[in-house]
Amino acid sequence: RKVLIVYAHQEPKSLNGSLKTVAVEELSKQGCTVTVSDLYAMQFEPRATRNDIVDCLHNSDEFNYGVETWEAYKRGGLSNDLIEEQKKVQDADLLIFQFPLYWFSMPAIMKGWMDRVLVQGFAHEFPNCYDSGLLKNKLALFSFTTGGSKEMYAKGGINGDIRYLLWPMQ
Amino acid sequence: RKVLIVYAHQEPKSLNGSLKTVAVEELSKQGCTVTVSDLYAMQFEPRATRNDIVDCLHNSDEFNYGVETWEAYKRGGLSNDLIEEQKKVQDADLLIFQFPLYWFSMPAIMKGWMDRVLVQGFAHEFPNCYDSGLLKNKLALFSFTTGGSKEMYAKGGINGDIRYLLWPMQ
Repeated sequence: RKVLIVYAHQEPKSLNGSLKTVAVEELSKQGCTVTVSDLYAMQFEPRATRNDIVDCLHNSDEFNYGVETWEAYKRGGLSNDLIEEQKKVQDADLLIFQFPLYWFSMPAIMKGWMDRVLVQGFAHEFPNCYDSGLLKNKLALFSFTTGGSKEMYAKGGINGDIRYLLWPMQ
Repeated sequence: RKVLIVYAHQEPKSLNGSLKTVAVEELSKQGCTVTVSDLYAMQFEPRATRNDIVDCLHNSDEFNYGVETWEAYKRGGLSNDLIEEQKKVQDADLLIFQFPLYWFSMPAIMKGWMDRVLVQGFAHEFPNCYDSGLLKNKLALFSFTTGGSKEMYAKGGINGDIRYLLWPMQ
């Protein structure tokens, strides 16, 4: 079994850092192959820009990020950092997202990973989305820490923004 | 009346670009002073890192972004791009966020604006949050475009992640 941990914390000594390390150790012990995308250490680019397409644009007159990345995905024209991350996702049976909650959601660096890596053509293709999405046989697990006490948050470990993700939690 | 438009689209000719331009023109005509933070044009940094604190850290042994930016805000030690944006927010009576929906939420570049600009001490200070937050007398308006038809989204112009923001919609 292959696991990809997408990890977003600046400090290895943090609780998030510990949770990531424990996950790597425990999963490896169980025989899994674990890959970590340490977004801050990679200085992962969160901004969705024209730089994500390495060759010519489909429509250079009016830039549409969704259309351009979709077209670039199909012809293999996405930037290397995206291709690398997509390979890791493709290889993985389980994805773990480890992050602290910022403004009731994931930090921008991880939101940028979602925006840029999970492009149309790779993660979904109408009408193949949600339960019939292209990554439907993968599991995803969100592990995050909060700045508040348990009472300050509603029960359940997954917040509103997050449960809409592609992969059914099955 | 002063208005700040926080705008996140790569293409001036896009629908988001047009909506921003129309807002600037119409509000100016009505006598408002309008400022635009054009995040992609500014190449706004979305990543929350140690670089946001220009001087020494409060605790250099273990980096905690929330604590460090809170402390830095109090002593005036935040980076210039954050201080500039906080000034714009402080000056504004109305904030307008203009963006396309990416993965059921705002694009990472705008999430980074939230994460980095709205730090503790500036936007909120326990127990002053939500209706008693430090920016409570400001109005905020979210204007966004979607890739799907009206039927694909629930009614109402504000999505789950967004309505939790500090400023009451009053």
